Formats: sequence, structure tokens, C-alpha cells
Amino acid sequence: MEATAEEVDAAVRAARAARAPLADRTVRAAFLRTAAYRLAAAEDRLVEAADAESALGPVRLTGELARTCYQLRAFADIVEEGAFLDVVIDHPDDTATPPVPDLRRHKVPLGVVAVYSASNFPFAFSVAGGDTASALAAGCPVVVKAHPDHPALSELVARVVRGAAAAHGIPGGVLGLVHGFDAGVELVRHPLVSAAGFTGSVRGGRALFDAAAARPAPIPFHGELGSLNPVLVTEAAAAERAEAVGTGLAGSMTLGLGQFCVKPGLVLVPAGAAGDRLVKSLMDAVSDTAAGVLLDHRMRDHFLAGVAERAALPGVDSPVTPGAGSAHTVSPGFLTVPAARLTGAGAHDLLLEECFGPVTVVARYADEDEATAVLARLPGNLTATVHLSAGEAAGEGRGARLLAELTPLAGRVVVDAWPTGVAVAPAQHHGGPYPATTSTSTSVGAGAIERWMRPVAYQNTPPALLPPELRDDNPLGLPRRCDGRLER
Amino acid sequence: MEATAEEVDAAVRAARAARAPLADRTVRAAFLRTAAYRLAAAEDRLVEAADAESALGPVRLTGELARTCYQLRAFADIVEEGAFLDVVIDHPDDTATPPVPDLRRHKVPLGVVAVYSASNFPFAFSVAGGDTASALAAGCPVVVKAHPDHPALSELVARVVRGAAAAHGIPGGVLGLVHGFDAGVELVRHPLVSAAGFTGSVRGGRALFDAAAARPAPIPFHGELGSLNPVLVTEAAAAERAEAVGTGLAGSMTLGLGQFCVKPGLVLVPAGAAGDRLVKSLMDAVSDTAAGVLLDHRMRDHFLAGVAERAALPGVDSPVTPGAGSAHTVSPGFLTVPAARLTGAGAHDLLLEECFGPVTVVARYADEDEATAVLARLPGNLTATVHLSAGEAAGEGRGARLLAELTPLAGRVVVDAWPTGVAVAPAQHHGGPYPATTSTSTSVGAGAIERWMRPVAYQNTPPALLPPELRDDNPLGLPRRCDGRLER
Repeated sequence: MEATAEEVDAAVRAARAARAPLADRTVRAAFLRTAAYRLAAAEDRLVEAADAESALGPVRLTGELARTCYQLRAFADIVEEGAFLDVVIDHPDDTATPPVPDLRRHKVPLGVVAVYSASNFPFAFSVAGGDTASALAAGCPVVVKAHPDHPALSELVARVVRGAAAAHGIPGGVLGLVHGFDAGVELVRHPLVSAAGFTGSVRGGRALFDAAAARPAPIPFHGELGSLNPVLVTEAAAAERAEAVGTGLAGSMTLGLGQFCVKPGLVLVPAGAAGDRLVKSLMDAVSDTAAGVLLDHRMRDHFLAGVAERAALPGVDSPVTPGAGSAHTVSPGFLTVPAARLTGAGAHDLLLEECFGPVTVVARYADEDEATAVLARLPGNLTATVHLSAGEAAGEGRGARLLAELTPLAGRVVVDAWPTGVAVAPAQHHGGPYPATTSTSTSVGAGAIERWMRPVAYQNTPPALLPPELRDDNPLGLPRRCDGRLER
Repeated sequence: MEATAEEVDAAVRAARAARAPLADRTVRAAFLRTAAYRLAAAEDRLVEAADAESALGPVRLTGELARTCYQLRAFADIVEEGAFLDVVIDHPDDTATPPVPDLRRHKVPLGVVAVYSASNFPFAFSVAGGDTASALAAGCPVVVKAHPDHPALSELVARVVRGAAAAHGIPGGVLGLVHGFDAGVELVRHPLVSAAGFTGSVRGGRALFDAAAARPAPIPFHGELGSLNPVLVTEAAAAERAEAVGTGLAGSMTLGLGQFCVKPGLVLVPAGAAGDRLVKSLMDAVSDTAAGVLLDHRMRDHFLAGVAERAALPGVDSPVTPGAGSAHTVSPGFLTVPAARLTGAGAHDLLLEECFGPVTVVARYADEDEATAVLARLPGNLTATVHLSAGEAAGEGRGARLLAELTPLAGRVVVDAWPTGVAVAPAQHHGGPYPATTSTSTSVGAGAIERWMRPVAYQNTPPALLPPELRDDNPLGLPRRCDGRLER
């Protein structure tokens, strides 16, 4: 089943050959819609196949497939609107220094994109997931490296998407699929691959990032690697609604058995009575949460070892011990530690690293400065969350300052809510300082398409030869900037 | 004069401390305008200092300083308009899959930017050049690694810019300056440096790119390294205006003594009588072009060695031999070679590498297929140029197809003109596939500011805490996208 170097090469060449049929925006949008339609129509078969290869369960898998189809349709809308082409036209201006000739710029597809799919989202971050959808929307054929946790589902999804492509005259090579670790490495090194998208671990993602950077001609590598997703609960918020925050936290950290990239992994809770109430609510809610089966056995081993290593650190308690529920399951839990243990480098730095699965670390802080000191030591995150009191939310006290303090830490700042649940929307940003992502871009939402494009300017080009996107009369009705002014 | 590791660290920390005073867009724009004003006011002193450290001459240097000031003002306009903040607002939508919460995104500065300045533009791509101007405009303080060819000028320019900063309450640390090779390496490795911009050689740029990618937390490295800038003259264009094209080529390849990154370095000219006339005109014009002094002695050595190595290849002729004009100068010239020598890998691949200085390679092609085969072998370029006949420009024959063929090669496609002369304009794109640049971004024009920003989304944030950029009532009048619709 593992692809040889020759098979990877063949997949990349077949993808490359699909660039021309994919170049037409109208065809592309229609293809994405048909893919969404056919995937949705195949729901029973797809969810059954996904369920056979994962423990996520039909309810979650059905929802995830719906999200995947929604995403494909959202990118079809984006393709049709055309703002992502970023059209800019400058007519000649002899008064500029130096003079400006006739210049017209738009964005073109980068070429074949390699996509590394994730274990925790067999639909939404896999074969027809966000990376693939955004790359196809950009006009880039894709070769997916399947995740070993769901190989048969990957083949099935690829077949459905290829069927949709065929319906629009696009060859099946537009979505290649390869299996195997070595194939993944071959793929990122292939000279005809122009960019890569990845969702997974820091270790795996960094190895591929390094390979992408070490190529004779380096390529953009958009990887989403790891994130602690810190949460800060202010003293006033805890005083006001300790129970609601504790229960909400339990729900967020155990959602999907803690296997979301945006699981809150470190929660700064004030020392004292209000914080104690919060922890008590968390205990109650987490204790009531059922054990479950993680994505695969390797992940279960990592989770149990990671929890044990953390729990053994001095000063760390386990009010609800996360651990082996049975031979196959794990049960949720959480650890507590005085925040003072985290303000300087040492063994406790392990608590500032992501631990995949249903566990979080509650750090009890003595005062604001201590909480700030811990936040300042965190690596980059996808999200940073703050729970404020009603007064702080209304502008009293340090609400705005806290927002400013959290902004450098993450790509998404959440207030009085939880980071789990990543909406597919134009304003979404799913990315953040390293190791959250390896670039400044997003892998969810409209901005994801930008990763697979590059600008090209045409200078002094005769009107007869201009692509329609760049013509003065704007036959395609594109939003654009013309002689410095936005036209929409 | 060379900065120690401690001095680099101090410069980076001083720059970091200037982030807050630089955060206000109004202050930032005013600072950029004041910097432009003061640099222009100091023209005599600056041009004199530049002239003392380079052979470019007062006329070119005066023009380059004007370009530099224009660029600073252009970025002030961009900062004031605010479109670069890329504001997107989504109000809650429960009908989406999954539901969309209140999400508001804008872009924030990355942090301290390292800028590596170039030898060939002591003003426009140096201390106050495009990388610095765009980074400051983005709200990022800068530490410049000065080019060793013009250290005193670098200090002088930095002092003027710091004076402008002081006039707006911004500390001088906002523009740090360090000298020395080792200091440059320290800089890109410094944990508090968030991104880097570079203009220079493939060798130096790649070493720094590698260092940026190898960091524990990799940073974006926007380097402009090298470009051959191919030109294709069609058979019909040669037949129609061989002399004009030959003379124009001579002007472009010898402009600034061939020391522009967009110098045409490979010109595909048809075999036969029309092409012969073109070459004859090129000979005449190049022969009439005076010898001159290159930027430094190292460059002169490289030029002479590079020309000699290329001229010694089988089948290569030198109708006008580029070479040593005197002990210090070099004289322009060009080489010719049958394009057939370039269609397959071999020793002649050297002719497909950039040779800095007043030399170009004219490859004579037998037919269209041969020209296409050579183009297909080229690495990435900043520019690709085509000269068409009037008929081809009007849409007859293969004009449009040629444009499509050149597009994958470069970031700017030029028709019936020459690539030298890079306008500072919204539609400009100065970048291209590797090794032209190490990223998909531009180092000239409005888009350059995007390199130094990252998006941040705010979810469920109370109105009282929102930055003014993200408020519903849009108090700053920013162009934005709201609930999917573009608002000017």
C-alpha cells in the first residue's frame, strides 16, 4: 500500500497535468460544489467507512463531513467572487519617482500542492479538508499524503472528489493520494511540488518543514504543529461565575476526548476561594465525563506517558487523575500546579508543552504579575482565551490590557468563551506564532486560499493580450484597486 | 566597528522597546513623512557621503535618494489608508456549519525586523530603503545590518531617520544599525527578531535563509537573491524593429553598469538575418558604452572571472568582449551562443546563472520550440520580458500564448519594454520563484508591507474592549469586509 518514489513521482506529474483544466475559475467553482454535493450524498457510506477506522463515532463524523462540505462550498463562493485574485491596476504616471509604467497585478496558482492529512479530523483536515479545498480553489492540483489511521476512508473520499472532477472535465490526477511515511518525505522534496500544507505534531511537522526549507529551491510549508491554548480566568471572573467557568472548561477540554488542536491545555486560575470553587466545578464535571477511545494506540501511549511525567513533577496534584480507563480507553482528568512553579525555566516547562488528549493543567496564580509572568514564557499558540467579569467586559479595570497582553501569544483571542469549535468564516484565523503554525497564514477560513498563490505583475502589456482579470473594462466584475483607489 | 554579539543583542532589545511608541498609525505615518522630509533636506550631505563610498556618481545617487523619499511617503499613505490591516468582521451566524461566533480579524506587526542592506542601492535598498520603510509602516522596529560597501553613509542615514523618530516621540532604537558579517548572522538567529528582509547574492541570502529556517522558532525570511531576467524577442519583432530592440537592450543591460537585479541576463534572439541585425545594433551600442567602476573590487573580480568562464565555453562568441577596462574599471560587452547549447543540462548551464555586471548572453534560437525549451529550463526570475511585433501585440499569432509561457518564470512580465526601472506602485511586484525571492512576496511596492504583519482574530470580544479598527461603527473609516461583503 505504501507508495514508492516512482508512484509519488507519477502522482505529482498527474497533478501537474491537471493545472490547465483547473485554471478556469468557473469550472473550478463548479467542481468544488459538485465535490461538496457528492460527498454529502455519500454521507452514509463515508461515515460508515470513517467509523470503521476511527473511534470518533457517527455523530461527530457526520458533523465533520457536513463541515467539510460547507467548506468546499465556501471556497466555491470565494473563487466566484474573485477578491482573492488581489487585482491591482496602475495606469502610467510620469510624475512618480521613478515614473510608473502601465502595471497590472493579480495572483496566480503556485502549482502542485502537497497536503499532509491529520489523524484527528478524518474529513475536515484530511483528503478533502481545508488544505485541499483551499488549494483547489486557488487553482492548484493536490497530492495528499494520507494519514495511516484512515487509509481506506482516504481512498474513498479521493474517489468521490475525482468523480466530481471528471464531471467537469478535470482529470482525476487533480487529487493524487499516496500512503506511507517515506512517500510523505519524497513528496515534500519533489521538484515539481510548489508548496505544502500540514496538520499534525510538532515533531513530524518540523521534520517536513526542515525538508521543505532544505530543498535546492525551498517551498512554502504551511504547517499547523502544536498549541497549548492558554486560558486566563481573572480574579473578578472567578468571583462572579466560578461554577460556569469550571463546567465550561470541562466541556472544552474533554470535547472530542481532548483531541482538538485548540484544546485549552493551560488554565490560569486565581488562588483563593473563588478559584477553589472553579476547580471544584471542574472536578465534578470532569469526573462525570465518560472515558473514551483515543485516535490510535500510539496516541494513547503518548497520552498516558505524558500525563504520568507531568503528574510526577513536584507540586503537581491530580484532583481527577487522567489515565487508562480500560485496556483501550482513557479517562479525562486534570492537573493543578502553583503558577509560581512556571514563572522560571526548569523541569516544570514540560507543563507548557501540549499534551494531546483529555487533560489540562490548572495553574493557580497568586496575583496578576504571576499570571503575566507565566503568559510571557509561553511559545506561540493558535488561541489565547480570557474570562472576564461583567465589569471588566464593560471596560472597567484591565480588560483591554489583558487583550493586548494575549494578542502576541496567539492567532485567535477568545473572550468569555472557549477555543474549541473553529468556525469556517472570512474573519477566522487558525494559525499563530511558532509552533502553532510555521507561517503567518491560516488553515481555516477564507484566508487559507492565499497560501497557494503568488502575485504576478504585467508591465506595458497590450490590451489584446491581457487576461480578462486585468482589463480596464473589468469584464469579470472583480473587486480591485485601480490607480490607488479601491473599487468594489 | 564590527558589532559584538552583545551589541547586536542591545540593538534588538532597543528596537523591541520601540514597538509601543510605533503602534499608533497616525504617529507612524507622520514619522515616515518626517523621515522623507529630512532625508530630502539632507540631500547634499547624503549624496556626498554616498559618492565618497561608491562609484555610482551624484546623478544616480540623487535620483536614488529621491526614490527612497518617495517610497517613505508612499508607505505613509498606505499606513493612513489602512487597507493593509485587512479588517474582516463576521457577526454571529447560527446557520453556518459549524455556527459562526462574533469574529473580527485584523493584522498586527510581527515584531522586530532584521534588514540586510544591499551594495547596489546605498539608499533605496539600504538603511532607509524599501525593507525598512515597509517594516516601519507595518509597525515593526528595524535593526539594519549595514552593507560593508557604505558604512559611513549607513550611519548618517540612520541618524537622520532617528532624528525624525525623535520628533514624534519614538526612541532612536526604532532603527538599529549593526556592522559586520558575524553581526548579521547573530541578528537572524536572535530570539527576539521576528522576520528578516534581505537583498543580495544567492550565496549570502541562502546562508541567512537557512539560518532563519534552522532557528528553534523559524522566522519568515524575505530574501531577494538572484535573477537572470530572460528576454525573448520573437522572429516577427526582430524582423520589424531589430535595431530598436538591439539598442534598447544595450541601454538596459549596461544601465548602472549592469548592477541591477533586473538586468536582462539572457536574451533569446532568432537566428537569421533579422536577429543578425539586432546583434549588430547591440554591438554598436555596447561598443559605444563607456567603461566604469563596479561597486567594489570583489564584484569586479567576480565579474571578470564569471565572464571569462562563460566565454571559454564551446560555441560561445564575444562580439564585444566584456572585460577589464583599466585597473579599476570594467567595460560592457556581451556573449552569443546557439540556443541549442542551452536546451539540455551540461557545462552551458553556467550561462543560465546570473552574472552581475555589464554583460548579457544572447542565445540565438532556430525555431520557437528551441526558445521554449530554453525558457523551460530556467530557474525563477524577478522579470521575464518579451518583444512582440505590432501584429502579435494586437492579438495575432502567439502573443497571448507567450505571455502564458513567461508567467511561470517570473514575478513581473514585461512586454515591449525593458525590465530595468522598478516603479514604486501599488501594482508592482518585485519577487519571483526561487532564487529570485525566497518567499512569494514583493520587496517593492505596496505589497511589501504584508511581509511584516500577521492576522489576529478576536472572538466574542465585548465592544468596550475592541480595538477601534474592529468596531462595528468603523470610527477610523477603514476599508473592510463585513459579513462577507466588501466595504470601501
